[in-house]
Amino acid sequence: MTPTPQRAAGTSHRTAPVHADLDQVTLESALLALADPVRQTLVRELATANDWERSCGTFDVPVTKATLSRHFAILRDAGLLEQRDSGPKRLNRLRRPEFDARFPGLLDLVLAER
Amino acid sequence: MTPTPQRAAGTSHRTAPVHADLDQVTLESALLALADPVRQTLVRELATANDWERSCGTFDVPVTKATLSRHFAILRDAGLLEQRDSGPKRLNRLRRPEFDARFPGLLDLVLAER
Repeated sequence: MTPTPQRAAGTSHRTAPVHADLDQVTLESALLALADPVRQTLVRELATANDWERSCGTFDVPVTKATLSRHFAILRDAGLLEQRDSGPKRLNRLRRPEFDARFPGLLDLVLAER
Repeated sequence: MTPTPQRAAGTSHRTAPVHADLDQVTLESALLALADPVRQTLVRELATANDWERSCGTFDVPVTKATLSRHFAILRDAGLLEQRDSGPKRLNRLRRPEFDARFPGLLDLVLAER
């Protein structure tokens, strides 16, 4: 039998988030992660906030909670997002220096648009 | 009734290709166009060729002719590709200066990868 993942006490997330090694992120996954309008909004909002300032519930995007979780997972897999749990909240940081080092100028294009 | 497009004499293409106005190309369509591995190959091969040197049948990609046509159309729509018919051949040019002006550095990322 597959063991049931343990829910950490006091958090609303089942397991701790897993983060990408930037060296393993393909250009394809980076481009696809940034092509989506909702993920562009998330990235732009994170870029104007301090690290760890924004919890997952504070983003103004017209999607369900489940869809938003999926968007966050895609951003994590593309090396764009770091998350950590703090009590009941999941806090977010844009991995800007790491991502810029791997794909120079790409994030800037998204942040400059609109 | 919709008029039937005329096939130009001596060409294998029904209608002349339509090209994108770079000002109208969205970042989303540019990123999606470049995210696909087959289209990355087409763009890289065009970047190493002279303008109008490569006809559509000369690209080494593992797709059907119909799928290849679809990839060319997506590249045209993203402002990356200019095509013109010359007798039975459709010739290709990477719109590098125009695309670079609209999305600085994006094409370079694709050309630098691998």
